[in-house]
Amino acid sequence: MRFYDCATAPSPRRVRIFIAEKEITIPVEEVDLASRQQHNDSFIKVNPHRTVPVLELDDGSVLTSTQGIWHYLEYCYPSKPLMGRNAAERGRVIDLEWRVEQEGFMAVGESFRNKSKAFKRHAFTGGQEYGQIPELIERGKLRTGHFFSWLDQLLGDRKFLAGDFFSIADITALVTIDFARWIKCEIPDDHTALKNWYAEVSRRPSSCV
Amino acid sequence: MRFYDCATAPSPRRVRIFIAEKEITIPVEEVDLASRQQHNDSFIKVNPHRTVPVLELDDGSVLTSTQGIWHYLEYCYPSKPLMGRNAAERGRVIDLEWRVEQEGFMAVGESFRNKSKAFKRHAFTGGQEYGQIPELIERGKLRTGHFFSWLDQLLGDRKFLAGDFFSIADITALVTIDFARWIKCEIPDDHTALKNWYAEVSRRPSSCV
Repeated sequence: MRFYDCATAPSPRRVRIFIAEKEITIPVEEVDLASRQQHNDSFIKVNPHRTVPVLELDDGSVLTSTQGIWHYLEYCYPSKPLMGRNAAERGRVIDLEWRVEQEGFMAVGESFRNKSKAFKRHAFTGGQEYGQIPELIERGKLRTGHFFSWLDQLLGDRKFLAGDFFSIADITALVTIDFARWIKCEIPDDHTALKNWYAEVSRRPSSCV
Repeated sequence: MRFYDCATAPSPRRVRIFIAEKEITIPVEEVDLASRQQHNDSFIKVNPHRTVPVLELDDGSVLTSTQGIWHYLEYCYPSKPLMGRNAAERGRVIDLEWRVEQEGFMAVGESFRNKSKAFKRHAFTGGQEYGQIPELIERGKLRTGHFFSWLDQLLGDRKFLAGDFFSIADITALVTIDFARWIKCEIPDDHTALKNWYAEVSRRPSSCV
């Protein structure tokens, strides 16, 4: 296997944290998004979608989404489960991770990509050109604020998003909150449950990989 | 269990097809989105996100995303697998379904919700208000066109999206293509592989539930 990563980007960080939590080792190839390496012919041959993370399997096939990579690795390395230990937990974890990605991670990304000059003609990843829409900058921030409030209420007295165990839902939420600094959104002071959870998951060794 | 459905909406149709393919039976409660039943207090108590599909489990907990419901049911009813039969297939199916949803289903939804008068202050589902952004109508159609082309190339000589077996990636793609009629986007005539695949999956009894 080979893991195509970018040390500074939020999406592949989700896979890095997962790999660290699993305590497995996969050879890494760094792709420098800042110098637009994802648009080089050599990388487009690996992933025509021009994104990281990518997991190249031993038969040469590739997985090009965080979710695809996570599920593959969870199937191969079932110990230290990160997607629940039974049907109810599996359903809950996938349910929460999906919502955290759609309402949090995507909202931050929408605000960021429609503002940064680097993405003037690339409001989406990939080879197609899409111009920026300035109204999405503020809409993304508004959605991020609602996302923080929902997470705070959800957590309440829970240790982790899905209950008493760390899961991929926590990974996406952690990465989203750090990503949100790029659009100048921080957890409001009165969101005590969310702040406590954030401090707790940020202390895990996996959060620093 | 109880499945909260809406016969006319694309999202819960993905769950209906899954249930039909599994050949299982789950009691159904119809939620009439046309008369805004999802905003009634009684339904908000079931799902504060005000969306269908919802799967209520026997302990009273709820799953409120297609993905959460699918994974729960796949875990409970592993025969007739719809997410692959081994690690490589699982990774590929999840990978493809994720991309079909993000680049197809979400693109159609974006165009539709930013145009229809019914969603003037509700460009997203849920209780928060977000105004429509007219530029997203055309952008969503443009993305849908690129999505069709990608699917056509991906399919080539394959029987189904992930290979020789029907999976959740096919379910989301089928529902997306039918949903795209709502924004007047149809498969172009020269997308032969996609047209053949569409005819094939539309003939399955599950497509009519």
